[in-house]
Amino acid sequence: MTEIKDLLSGMNTVVRPDGRKVDELRPATITRHFTDVPEGSVLICCGNTRVMCTATFTPGVPRWRKDSGLGWVTAEYAMLPRATAERTDRESVKGKVGGRTHEISRLIGRCLRGVVNMKALGENQIQIDCDVLQADGGTRTASITGAYVALVDALNWAEAHKHIRSAARVLTDSVSAVSVGVIDGTPMLDLPYVEDSKAMTDMNVAMTGSGKFIEIQGTAEHRPFDRDELNTLLDLATKGNRELQAIQQAALAKD
Amino acid sequence: MTEIKDLLSGMNTVVRPDGRKVDELRPATITRHFTDVPEGSVLICCGNTRVMCTATFTPGVPRWRKDSGLGWVTAEYAMLPRATAERTDRESVKGKVGGRTHEISRLIGRCLRGVVNMKALGENQIQIDCDVLQADGGTRTASITGAYVALVDALNWAEAHKHIRSAARVLTDSVSAVSVGVIDGTPMLDLPYVEDSKAMTDMNVAMTGSGKFIEIQGTAEHRPFDRDELNTLLDLATKGNRELQAIQQAALAKD
Amino acid sequence: MTEIKDLLSGMNTVVRPDGRKVDELRPATITRHFTDVPEGSVLICCGNTRVMCTATFTPGVPRWRKDSGLGWVTAEYAMLPRATAERTDRESVKGKVGGRTHEISRLIGRCLRGVVNMKALGENQIQIDCDVLQADGGTRTASITGAYVALVDALNWAEAHKHIRSAARVLTDSVSAVSVGVIDGTPMLDLPYVEDSKAMTDMNVAMTGSGKFIEIQGTAEHRPFDRDELNTLLDLATKGNRELQAIQQAALAKD
Amino acid sequence: MTEIKDLLSGMNTVVRPDGRKVDELRPATITRHFTDVPEGSVLICCGNTRVMCTATFTPGVPRWRKDSGLGWVTAEYAMLPRATAERTDRESVKGKVGGRTHEISRLIGRCLRGVVNMKALGENQIQIDCDVLQADGGTRTASITGAYVALVDALNWAEAHKHIRSAARVLTDSVSAVSVGVIDGTPMLDLPYVEDSKAMTDMNVAMTGSGKFIEIQGTAEHRPFDRDELNTLLDLATKGNRELQAIQQAALAKD
Amino acid sequence: MTEIKDLLSGMNTVVRPDGRKVDELRPATITRHFTDVPEGSVLICCGNTRVMCTATFTPGVPRWRKDSGLGWVTAEYAMLPRATAERTDRESVKGKVGGRTHEISRLIGRCLRGVVNMKALGENQIQIDCDVLQADGGTRTASITGAYVALVDALNWAEAHKHIRSAARVLTDSVSAVSVGVIDGTPMLDLPYVEDSKAMTDMNVAMTGSGKFIEIQGTAEHRPFDRDELNTLLDLATKGNRELQAIQQAALAKD
Amino acid sequence: MTEIKDLLSGMNTVVRPDGRKVDELRPATITRHFTDVPEGSVLICCGNTRVMCTATFTPGVPRWRKDSGLGWVTAEYAMLPRATAERTDRESVKGKVGGRTHEISRLIGRCLRGVVNMKALGENQIQIDCDVLQADGGTRTASITGAYVALVDALNWAEAHKHIRSAARVLTDSVSAVSVGVIDGTPMLDLPYVEDSKAMTDMNVAMTGSGKFIEIQGTAEHRPFDRDELNTLLDLATKGNRELQAIQQAALAKD
Repeated sequence: MTEIKDLLSGMNTVVRPDGRKVDELRPATITRHFTDVPEGSVLICCGNTRVMCTATFTPGVPRWRKDSGLGWVTAEYAMLPRATAERTDRESVKGKVGGRTHEISRLIGRCLRGVVNMKALGENQIQIDCDVLQADGGTRTASITGAYVALVDALNWAEAHKHIRSAARVLTDSVSAVSVGVIDGTPMLDLPYVEDSKAMTDMNVAMTGSGKFIEIQGTAEHRPFDRDELNTLLDLATKGNRELQAIQQAALAKD
Repeated sequence: MTEIKDLLSGMNTVVRPDGRKVDELRPATITRHFTDVPEGSVLICCGNTRVMCTATFTPGVPRWRKDSGLGWVTAEYAMLPRATAERTDRESVKGKVGGRTHEISRLIGRCLRGVVNMKALGENQIQIDCDVLQADGGTRTASITGAYVALVDALNWAEAHKHIRSAARVLTDSVSAVSVGVIDGTPMLDLPYVEDSKAMTDMNVAMTGSGKFIEIQGTAEHRPFDRDELNTLLDLATKGNRELQAIQQAALAKD
Repeated sequence: MTEIKDLLSGMNTVVRPDGRKVDELRPATITRHFTDVPEGSVLICCGNTRVMCTATFTPGVPRWRKDSGLGWVTAEYAMLPRATAERTDRESVKGKVGGRTHEISRLIGRCLRGVVNMKALGENQIQIDCDVLQADGGTRTASITGAYVALVDALNWAEAHKHIRSAARVLTDSVSAVSVGVIDGTPMLDLPYVEDSKAMTDMNVAMTGSGKFIEIQGTAEHRPFDRDELNTLLDLATKGNRELQAIQQAALAKD
Repeated sequence: MTEIKDLLSGMNTVVRPDGRKVDELRPATITRHFTDVPEGSVLICCGNTRVMCTATFTPGVPRWRKDSGLGWVTAEYAMLPRATAERTDRESVKGKVGGRTHEISRLIGRCLRGVVNMKALGENQIQIDCDVLQADGGTRTASITGAYVALVDALNWAEAHKHIRSAARVLTDSVSAVSVGVIDGTPMLDLPYVEDSKAMTDMNVAMTGSGKFIEIQGTAEHRPFDRDELNTLLDLATKGNRELQAIQQAALAKD
Repeated sequence: MTEIKDLLSGMNTVVRPDGRKVDELRPATITRHFTDVPEGSVLICCGNTRVMCTATFTPGVPRWRKDSGLGWVTAEYAMLPRATAERTDRESVKGKVGGRTHEISRLIGRCLRGVVNMKALGENQIQIDCDVLQADGGTRTASITGAYVALVDALNWAEAHKHIRSAARVLTDSVSAVSVGVIDGTPMLDLPYVEDSKAMTDMNVAMTGSGKFIEIQGTAEHRPFDRDELNTLLDLATKGNRELQAIQQAALAKD
Repeated sequence: MTEIKDLLSGMNTVVRPDGRKVDELRPATITRHFTDVPEGSVLICCGNTRVMCTATFTPGVPRWRKDSGLGWVTAEYAMLPRATAERTDRESVKGKVGGRTHEISRLIGRCLRGVVNMKALGENQIQIDCDVLQADGGTRTASITGAYVALVDALNWAEAHKHIRSAARVLTDSVSAVSVGVIDGTPMLDLPYVEDSKAMTDMNVAMTGSGKFIEIQGTAEHRPFDRDELNTLLDLATKGNRELQAIQQAALAKD
């Protein structure tokens, strides 16, 4: 990571509200078997952001996928009403799923499908549910990182229960995600809410364990960014994802 | 409680799947400050049932209540999709709140309003959210018992922040709830899912700390019950609520 | 009923707005064959409350019940917009069924299922519709009482049309329901709207012809009640249901 | 009406299922004060079709009409689930109002607005509700005919309660409606369901007491009609409306 | 058309905002193959009103029509949000289809079914979509006129692709529609928005190429009309439809 | 663009289905004043993809933005039912906006807000509507490119009508967007549907006239991509956007 250090050399004097360095992740923990019933059940905490990720394995696929020989992975994201500082109305009560929820659910689904061999999964479905218990920025990236671990547990369960031949063959790689952004001109890693709301550029980057990109979503509603800034942000994201993947592996190594 | 002992004398030989006696509660714990943001945030575990209960204090009341000088307390109940053995579709995705959810949300709201002096609360609103993380029977009664503790925390917060003069004056009493039922002819206390699904008669009883009833909901879709059975069930519920109220008080005594 | 007389001795001096005694039902009438088309069609009037109850018999059961050998009974309750003093918006126009409607529909369904032998019904479905033409308190209990008569007519129709072997074998008992409540400290039977809105405790009690309970829903949002009050209320409800069942039988005896 | 007799001379030998002549209305009755609460409440029976029509008078108008000095009249039509031979699912449960319901509600509203002087009504609103208790063809025309009588009662109530100066000034005319159609080449008046479902051409005609048209809705999905047939149908409709208006006047003459 | 000239002789001095005579259509053009993908795709312009009409041919029919040997034709109408002077909210965003949309969709469907032989169509479905790009009065009648041409193209496509034996046998006639109305006492043909909004009587008339009526929808919310006015309006509509049918034929004659 | 030529040197032998080179845009045209009523109305054609983009200027902002001194820009995207090879059901009929629609509407809104100075816009709102008349890949990027031109027209209208002081001051830059992707290992510019559905990696890139990024959305559900591929894709997108911006400027230069 020496190259990032150089790139960011001038930035390290920046003081972040929580005392972190610009290229430093918030403390992250992953708790497996958070609840007892689902095939995979994970609590991921990234700073004060806490997301419960479950993976449900079901033999069979939706109708449009029948007789294809291929499996399916899908995801739904939601926030509990009081995950946020001000209570958010329930989408079930409003009667419709909002645009932001839709957008994030689709993102999570794509990221996980990006590391799944659908043929090896066979005609089985995995449904990921990411429910945010507490939100402090980066809920979508924490969801992806936690969901991957729940997915592994669900596949191992399916292997143990003879629904699939080999969990290892289904997984082509691992995946994690992290947010990066530019605040007052300084690129930073892993933004909590207080920084996220001030970011001029905001980017979510999902990467595989082998260091490739699955999703890059950069948005600069408040100030466009140039190629150099992009490169710095991608360097930061690469560093962050590498560290998150180590935490994923450590969690999965425990029994 | 000597009279229950007598009434139930013949029943104590019954073996319940989890080894409990017929008049024994499942282990129950109440964790306050489960999340950081809400004015009240409680995790209640009753056996394997786990519910997160938050209380949101908001100055002001809904429009229909304006200028009445009275406050308002309302509640919403929901299950996370994988709280259950089989995944349940999200009501937000289905686009409507189901009948069972409506029924339970209304029950929780009535029980809490039953111990609140709306005049002392003034024109302020408390919104209770009960989200079931894991369901193993008795989710609605656990919600009531946990929500009361979250309510107390929210009122203490409101007193500390000068929104109300005195939390103690708002609360006219405490409230807890427990389920009882008749299984294979035997009345039992605090039914987990495996028992609940076999119960001929099922009753949820919410009681105040002073031992009075706020709600009795007895239903006997599968076999009507007579006055004697009713009395035994109410005795069991009285015993269970007394014990749950001790757990509530112990949790509130901690700082 | 001598014991009620004693219990209530001090209460009989209370003057109710409509001149009734505390343990006196409103005049109740049940008109069968109110409309021509349904298998069962009943108009029930309890004081000024008027509910049209129809029972629709359909061979076959919903998909989740297929191949079980069991039948199904379900109910829907609704109010016409101008059943009430102020016009209520239609739920069809609002686009969703409200919590109160859901709660009552489910209550009616459970009460009727409580007296039906699903095996004897076979794989047939009965749908109960209770539409309130005019509401003056007690609409849910009137719905149950009227729906039972419509159910009997529908079963007799099904027997006559050879859909079931014997209506008598399907019915394990009869069912009626009545409201009771505590007003200004006095327990009373069968509350019209003017009393219902002042009741501190409000209880709906559904009982079988053999005097057992199918549902007890007591709610005391405004003042908790103790065991003695509960017992008095149940005595009143027993008296009221006995009288309503006589009216049901008389209606069914007519051709 | 001699000219119709001539036009139809050859047709009078046609035997209709219920024995009527081609230019004969079904027996029609109008019962005022059918329920007690609404400002206007009418039960209209046209043969086996029975519709409950209520008129709700409310001071004030919807927001878009404020400060116009003008009133508003609107209507909603609905069928009870078991008004029909096969049970129809409730639109409240389906979560949306169907196209047919929308179309009819709008038709009823236009017809009544066609005889109301909005300036004389002042900033007051009348909401018409037409709920079909039993459907046997012609429910929309029966709704219009019955709703007019409910409207008159509501306006008289409003005059008596000093909400408007004069009911007579608000009403510019009376209105009724009837269906006509061509069956097997023969034009006929007032079609019950059995005829309506066979009609090649189907027309609903709303007319004022002074014999003018407010709405003509002719539809010939199954066989186009020519100008001569149109004229015969309009003659029949004129005759039918004249008779219905006599029934309206007779009902309004009673106290 | 000499008879209309006489009837209208006194009216021809009326100056319309766009300089037309009272019995004169707005310039109308029909462009086939407006988009490439649909089986039929037409842009119809009637003055400033522009509607895109597509016809989708699909083998097979909806479930309720299966095994009948008959085809089905259905239509949906919608306005783009900025077809109107003030932007209209999308019905997809509001979550429900409005009454006006429902009413018009049903009208278009009936008109087209009125010229289709369902037996000759066989078990195939045609879905008409009419999307208003710009609205200046008469959008529903322009939709019908344009949709007929799209329908012909779709049927010719189906014949060429061997889905049906003969497009000519499916079509029993052609159909077009035009609006007429009474403005300040003067009957007029083909009303743009500025006239439509002032019309006391408003009528939409769909006619076949052989001069018969398929739909007449006359509404006189603002002033009833008598038989003479009706006859004049029908004469105007006949003239307008004859001219529109010539434009349809000319468009279809081009390759 | 010499550097792209080099990077792509080996790729230029690839034959695309429509004969284009890998770094070649489809023919693109922008027609202003496509309809007469909106403040901005544009038809953009990119190959066979055709989108109608309107911009509605409304004085005032939504409630949550009031008294901020800032304006607001929002967007809605939709497809006509027969824009696609198989007809797509209308979201208005389904009763909810789908996830894809939500995602794209939000993307378009962010891109346009990225070049708008909300302070200079003042408390005024611009609503962008992008309705896809025909879809052949790249509908979201064509929407952004077309919507920018509609936005400029609407701002010029607002300046001419004195709603804003200066359109030029509101616009901080221009914006266009284009899709790029990797097909069979080859990065390509501007994918039509036939290529898009085979792309392993798919990226939409919105850039300003000054060559900065506003949005990068790269997704690799089917095969992750590395940093080199990313750079090639961004080079292609830069070239494409530069050419689209020339087309935008040419369209805006016309009167």
